[in-house]
Amino acid sequence: MLNDKDTHVSKLSSKEASYFIGKDKMAVVLSALASGNRINLTEALEPLHPADIADLIEQLSTTDRARFIRLYDNEFYGDILSEIDEHIREQVISELNPDVLAEAVRDLESDDVVDLVEDLEEKQKETILNALAEGDRVAVQSLLSYPEQSAGRLMQREVVMAPEHWSVGMAIDFLRNNANLPEQFYHIVLVDPRLHPVGNVSLGKLMSSKRSVLLKTIIEDAFQVIPADQDEADVAYAFNQYHLISAPVIDRENRVVGVITIDDAMVVLDEELEEDILLLAGVGGDSSVSDTILETVRGRLPWLAVNLVTAILASIVIAQFEETIAQFVALAILMPIIASMGGNAATQSLTMAVRAIATKDISSTNIGRVIRREIGVGVLTGLIFAFSMGLIGVIWFGTAMLGVVIALSMLINLIVANLAGTTIPVLLEKLEIDPALASGAFVTTVTDVVGFFAFLSIAGILLL
Amino acid sequence: MLNDKDTHVSKLSSKEASYFIGKDKMAVVLSALASGNRINLTEALEPLHPADIADLIEQLSTTDRARFIRLYDNEFYGDILSEIDEHIREQVISELNPDVLAEAVRDLESDDVVDLVEDLEEKQKETILNALAEGDRVAVQSLLSYPEQSAGRLMQREVVMAPEHWSVGMAIDFLRNNANLPEQFYHIVLVDPRLHPVGNVSLGKLMSSKRSVLLKTIIEDAFQVIPADQDEADVAYAFNQYHLISAPVIDRENRVVGVITIDDAMVVLDEELEEDILLLAGVGGDSSVSDTILETVRGRLPWLAVNLVTAILASIVIAQFEETIAQFVALAILMPIIASMGGNAATQSLTMAVRAIATKDISSTNIGRVIRREIGVGVLTGLIFAFSMGLIGVIWFGTAMLGVVIALSMLINLIVANLAGTTIPVLLEKLEIDPALASGAFVTTVTDVVGFFAFLSIAGILLL
Repeated sequence: MLNDKDTHVSKLSSKEASYFIGKDKMAVVLSALASGNRINLTEALEPLHPADIADLIEQLSTTDRARFIRLYDNEFYGDILSEIDEHIREQVISELNPDVLAEAVRDLESDDVVDLVEDLEEKQKETILNALAEGDRVAVQSLLSYPEQSAGRLMQREVVMAPEHWSVGMAIDFLRNNANLPEQFYHIVLVDPRLHPVGNVSLGKLMSSKRSVLLKTIIEDAFQVIPADQDEADVAYAFNQYHLISAPVIDRENRVVGVITIDDAMVVLDEELEEDILLLAGVGGDSSVSDTILETVRGRLPWLAVNLVTAILASIVIAQFEETIAQFVALAILMPIIASMGGNAATQSLTMAVRAIATKDISSTNIGRVIRREIGVGVLTGLIFAFSMGLIGVIWFGTAMLGVVIALSMLINLIVANLAGTTIPVLLEKLEIDPALASGAFVTTVTDVVGFFAFLSIAGILLL
Repeated sequence: MLNDKDTHVSKLSSKEASYFIGKDKMAVVLSALASGNRINLTEALEPLHPADIADLIEQLSTTDRARFIRLYDNEFYGDILSEIDEHIREQVISELNPDVLAEAVRDLESDDVVDLVEDLEEKQKETILNALAEGDRVAVQSLLSYPEQSAGRLMQREVVMAPEHWSVGMAIDFLRNNANLPEQFYHIVLVDPRLHPVGNVSLGKLMSSKRSVLLKTIIEDAFQVIPADQDEADVAYAFNQYHLISAPVIDRENRVVGVITIDDAMVVLDEELEEDILLLAGVGGDSSVSDTILETVRGRLPWLAVNLVTAILASIVIAQFEETIAQFVALAILMPIIASMGGNAATQSLTMAVRAIATKDISSTNIGRVIRREIGVGVLTGLIFAFSMGLIGVIWFGTAMLGVVIALSMLINLIVANLAGTTIPVLLEKLEIDPALASGAFVTTVTDVVGFFAFLSIAGILLL
C-alpha cells in the first residue's frame, strides 16, 4: 500500500488528471478481453479504485462487458458492484457467477447493500438478500422498510453514542475498550436517557480536550437531526447548507436509529442536480449514456410528444393569419426570429427560477421583487433587440413599417417570455408539481403562441 | 445549547422542513426592521444558523438590507459574512461598521477569509486583510497566491501529520498532548521524512486499534493526494468518485502543504453543477436571483445576441425559398413544428453529451457507440414523428404530398439534431472549449439551418 503513493501522485498531477482511466489502460483491458488473458486483466485493474473499475465496466460494449464478467469473475468484489451505474447493474448481476455474487455482497456494509438492491427486480433482490448472513439480511430488510429516497435508506445503523452526562475521559475509555466500532465514524452522538440526540462531539475535539471536560460542553455548533422519513433531497440540502459531516437520524419518537455521513449526502446532491439538468432538457431524470436505444427513446418520447402538441398550437395560431402571410412572405421569413428569441429568453428566466426554487432562494419575501426584476430585464432586452432587429428588418426588406412590426412584437415577446419563465415555475411549485419537470412545456406554449400572435396580428394591422 | 434540540427536531420533522426560514420568521424580521426594533430582530435571529441568516439577508430588498446591517450591527459575526452570496457581499461589507467588520473577520479560519475576499474589489480586500492579525494575514495572503479555483484556495493549512513509522499509542499521546489541534480534522496524514504523504489514518480507526499497532497498517483504502494547483472541479470530482472525507494537498515537490475536507468539496460540486445548468440555459454561470436588472441583462445579453445571429441565419435559409412559400402558405404554418422538434431533440442529446463529458462517462472507448446510439434514437423518434405529423399534415391540409414533405423533413431533422447534439459537445471538449458554454449556439444553428432547408427544399421538389 505504501508503494501506491507514487502512482497516486503522478496520476493526479499529470495534465490528464481529469481522466482516471487513461486510453492506455483501456487498450490493455480491451486486448486482455479479446485474448481472454485473465492475468493481464487482473494486473491492469489491480491499482484501480473500485469506482474507476465500475466506470470502466460501464464504458464497455455489452459483449465486452459479458466477457469481462466471465474473465474477472473471482476478483469481482462488492465495492465494484455498489459503484456500478444502476442501468448496468442488472446485466452484471445476472451474468455474474452466483457464488462470486454471494461473496461480493457479503463484503458490503448494510447501507451499501440497500443501495445495491433497491432498484433491482424482485428476483435479483431475493438472490442477493439470500446470500447475506441472517443478521445482515435483517438489517438490510429493516432499512428497506423505509420509503424510497428517504433518509432511512441513506443511513447506516451503527451509531457511536454516549450518555449526555459523560466526560471526555469516559468517552475515550469507552472507545478504546469497544471492539465493535463502525468502520467509519466522525462524531459521538450524545443522547439523553430516552435515546433522544442532544449533540455531536467530533473525535478531533474529543482528542484535544482534557479527560475531566464534560462532553456536552464541547458539542459542535453545526448540529441537525434528520427524521428517518425525510426526503433525501432535503437531507442533501441540510448537509450542504449547514456544512454537516455526520448527522443522527431519528424515528418518530425522536430516538436515534442511525447516522448519515456527508459522503452519502454528497452523492445525493450530485444525483439531484444531475436529475434537474436532465429534466430541464426534457430527458428522463434517470437517463444515462449507457442506456440502449429503446430505453433512450422511451425516456425522450414523452417530452418530444408534448413539444409536438405545443408546436401544433403555435401553428394553429399562424394558420389564422394565412392571408396576411400570403401577402407578405417576408413575415414567414422573420417569424422564426421572434419565436427563437422568445424561446431563449424564456429558457433563461425559467432556469433561473427553477434553480432559485430548488436552492430556496425564492420565497414569499422576494418573489414580487424577482418578478419585477424579470419584467425589467424583458423590457430592457426587448428594447435592445427591438431596435437592432427592427433596423435589420428595414434594411433587409426595405419597408419601414415592417421594422416597426418586428420591433413591437420583439418587445412584447421578450417581456412575456421573462414573465412566463418566472411565474410558471413558481405556480407549478405551489401546485406541488416539479418545476424542473413541467415548466418547459408550459413556458414554450406561452411564448410561441404569444410571439406568433403578436407578430402576425401587429403585421395584419400595420401592413395591410 | 442542549435546549436547542427540540427546536431543531421540530424544525426538521415538520412538513415545511424544506423551508428553514418560515414566513412567520420573515414577518417578525420585517416588522422589526420597519420599526427599528433591535431587540426583536436579535431575538428572532438568535436560534438561526448563520447560513440561514445569510439566506434571509439575501432575500431582503436593498433598502431593507441596509436597514438590517445598521440594526443588527454588533451581532454581525464572521460566519454570516462568509455564508452570504458573493453578489450581496460587497453591499454588506461596504455598509457594515468598519469595527464590526474587522471583528467579524478575525473570527474566521484562514480558508474562510480567502473565500470571503477572493472576489471582492481590491479596496475592500485591503480593508479586510488589514483587519487581520499579522500571522493570519500572512496565512491568507499565502493561500491567495494559489491560482483562482485551485485546490490551494480550498485547503486549510493546519494539517495533523505523523511520521509513517509511528504506532497508534504514539499518535494518541501526540494528539492528547497537543494544544494546537485544528478545529475540524478527521484523519492523521502519515508522512515520510521528506514530508511526502503516505496515507490517511481515520480518527475512528485510531481509537479502535491497540496502542502497539503501527499506523501504516491501518491506513484508509480510499486515499488520494491533491496537487495544490489542481482545478477545484477535479477536486470535487475526486471526493465524489472516491468517497474521500479529507485529502492532503501537496506542492510541486510532493510535500504536504494543507488539507481539503469534503464539506468544501461538496460546496464546489454544488457550484459546478449549478454553473453548468445556468450555462446550458444561456445564462451567465454566476447569475443569481439577487442580481440587479443591469447585472442580469449583462449576463444574458451575449447569449441572446448569439441566438439572434443564429436565428437570422435560419431566416436567410428561409428567404431562399420565398417563392415556394408564396405558393404554399401551408409551409409557413408548418415550419415552426419542424424547427421546434429539431431544437428539442438536439437539446436532449446535447444535454446528455455535456453531462456525460463532465462526469467522464464518455471516453474514446464508447464515443463511437454513443454516437451510433444517438443516430438510432434519431431514426426511431424520427420515424414515429414523421408518421404522426405526416398524417396530421395530410388531414389538416388535405394534400397527400404535403404529408410526405413533412414526414421526410422530420426524419432528416431529428437524425441531424441527435447527431449534432452529441458530436458538437465532444468536438468542443477536444478543442478545450467548455461544452456547457458553447454547444447550444452551434447545435441550434445546425438544426435550424438543416431543418428549414430540408423542409423547404423537399417541398420545392415535391410540391411545385
